[in-house]
Amino acid sequence: MHPWLAKRTELFDSSGIRKVFDLAAKLENPINLSIGQPDFPAPDSVKQAAIDAINGDKNGYSLTQGIAPLREALESQVRDEFGQPQRKLIVTSGTSGALSLALLSLVDPGDEVIGFDPYFVMYPALTGMSGGTFVPIDTYPDFRIDLAKVEAAITDRTKLILLNSPSNPSGVVATEAEVRGLAELAAKHDVALLSDEIYRPFCYDAPLVSPARFNDQTLVVDAFSKSHALTGWRVGWAHGPAPIIEKMTMLQQYTFVCAPHPLQWGALEAMNVSIQPYADKYRERRDHLVAGLRDAGYTVPQPGGAFYAFPQVPAGYANATEFVAQAIERELLIIPGNIFSKHDSHFRISYAASMETIDRGLAVLHELV
Amino acid sequence: MHPWLAKRTELFDSSGIRKVFDLAAKLENPINLSIGQPDFPAPDSVKQAAIDAINGDKNGYSLTQGIAPLREALESQVRDEFGQPQRKLIVTSGTSGALSLALLSLVDPGDEVIGFDPYFVMYPALTGMSGGTFVPIDTYPDFRIDLAKVEAAITDRTKLILLNSPSNPSGVVATEAEVRGLAELAAKHDVALLSDEIYRPFCYDAPLVSPARFNDQTLVVDAFSKSHALTGWRVGWAHGPAPIIEKMTMLQQYTFVCAPHPLQWGALEAMNVSIQPYADKYRERRDHLVAGLRDAGYTVPQPGGAFYAFPQVPAGYANATEFVAQAIERELLIIPGNIFSKHDSHFRISYAASMETIDRGLAVLHELV
Repeated sequence: MHPWLAKRTELFDSSGIRKVFDLAAKLENPINLSIGQPDFPAPDSVKQAAIDAINGDKNGYSLTQGIAPLREALESQVRDEFGQPQRKLIVTSGTSGALSLALLSLVDPGDEVIGFDPYFVMYPALTGMSGGTFVPIDTYPDFRIDLAKVEAAITDRTKLILLNSPSNPSGVVATEAEVRGLAELAAKHDVALLSDEIYRPFCYDAPLVSPARFNDQTLVVDAFSKSHALTGWRVGWAHGPAPIIEKMTMLQQYTFVCAPHPLQWGALEAMNVSIQPYADKYRERRDHLVAGLRDAGYTVPQPGGAFYAFPQVPAGYANATEFVAQAIERELLIIPGNIFSKHDSHFRISYAASMETIDRGLAVLHELV
Repeated sequence: MHPWLAKRTELFDSSGIRKVFDLAAKLENPINLSIGQPDFPAPDSVKQAAIDAINGDKNGYSLTQGIAPLREALESQVRDEFGQPQRKLIVTSGTSGALSLALLSLVDPGDEVIGFDPYFVMYPALTGMSGGTFVPIDTYPDFRIDLAKVEAAITDRTKLILLNSPSNPSGVVATEAEVRGLAELAAKHDVALLSDEIYRPFCYDAPLVSPARFNDQTLVVDAFSKSHALTGWRVGWAHGPAPIIEKMTMLQQYTFVCAPHPLQWGALEAMNVSIQPYADKYRERRDHLVAGLRDAGYTVPQPGGAFYAFPQVPAGYANATEFVAQAIERELLIIPGNIFSKHDSHFRISYAASMETIDRGLAVLHELV
């Protein structure tokens, strides 16, 4: 390691997802089921609103906390769902921005952050960036939350619990009982609870139940990235207890400065655009993919949301890394489970792709059993 | 303080600049000379390139390190100036993004970061965020760099020296001798040197001399924010030693993800647009403002660049905070020096404003002597 580099950089290696993307770049006609963003285009009216803002010279700094109309529209949406008028809100540079600010604002060196394994790749990385220790709670084989395990993992150093439902990578949606139990557990132990709801509109079997309903100190992060196919716009938001959001805002002043100004105006318009027709399509693709996987003999915990499934690698492979290497030899791009987990026994497959691509993928997966 | 907040958040208070902005919002017809961004609009062709990217569905993630055409155009510009083909480059979310990634990648808890007082407000903040100690070197009264003082300040814990020329807040441009001496000192002591060149196109008396010319391990950060009036777009870049830029790129994956994708295409077009006519105007305004200040009896170290001057508060005021309060009572918005300094003896005045506004400001400043 270069002698100038800080110790925390040892934690950051090139993400495994990027390695798959690099492999993908070399394939001529890949069956790409590794994608972490919608395959539909951003809505036209949303694009137009951003274009109008650019033409209207809204290209300088916005307020640190975001343009007032977007903040007010989001606050009104939050009040409609939760009440809790004391809740504060900040517009961020995507959920990644919100997560970065939250972890840096909450986690001291030596603090512990509880998450559920399999977990979103950023959670251990940002915990480490803040000097904390990531404490994964194993949820295999069904990816359900065992509240007794969570309670047993809470120590004097526990600062934060991270919930991501629907989950990346498993697509599993926490039940109302799990969510309520976790919310109550956090309140009981006076531990912060962060709910990452970026896949909220992609819940296929029932609307998302947020832990903020049961614990008004819950910090919620969300974004327009996945809902409106705007992952490259970097516009999201966070809401929660005022003292936390205020410090996140101060930290934003010195780091992200503000979410991209003209694109915030596009995001405001996105609030008027329902993506339910796309969610309906994704539900069909989920059903098709899961049925196809099970027909082929794969074990797949039921994904209720997002656009991922996380099946178990079939017998005969040493681990997911070996299995995925075989898949990539057949031009199928999927992600090995060890990117998201202490285990390397499952793989993430995305259905943010056409039915034709999904069928080509299923054909390869049939061969690999 | 809320018990969940991390200790590092104690370092982050609402920036004094924002407090002036809050006061400004209450005034009916303020004479606003507190502005930190150009007062000309973004060039039309730059807006159009971003609009074309939005319409062309470039709204998903870009590569972490930035879109290839922008990266290649910037790399070519860097090679033209410095040679140094081993230099690596990353597109960032403005210089703030580049600075955040650089400090987090370089500074371990306990490390020392040397900067020059008066300093850009982010330097102590980001040093503290990374767990380091900011070591300011006093440059009053002429804001010149005393290399002997720098060498005396270097210890076993010194990780980094931060140079910002032209300087925010003083507008002072380091001489070639200062820059060369600093570059050689950093090399001699094997300390990282970061050159923040965001005001590079606003050098009125001679082109900027970068320390990277004399020390090929220099990390340089820059952006389109000030040069092309795009502060709200959040697009900048950093270049330097490959191992540092590679770690900054990995850290970007987990924090900023990528600079806003469609706006990167706008930034690419900005590389074709000279802003020299605006720089020429700003030179005239600088000359006019500095002459006016001196006529009124103010002591002003000569600003060679950026769009700020940093005059001394006249006799009869306890400090800059008191002086600025008096100015704001007369509707003149300027920034007290203690925002940028251990001293509270000077004030920052921006000339990114019309001649008429500058004249109104000068009239108030005449009254205040």
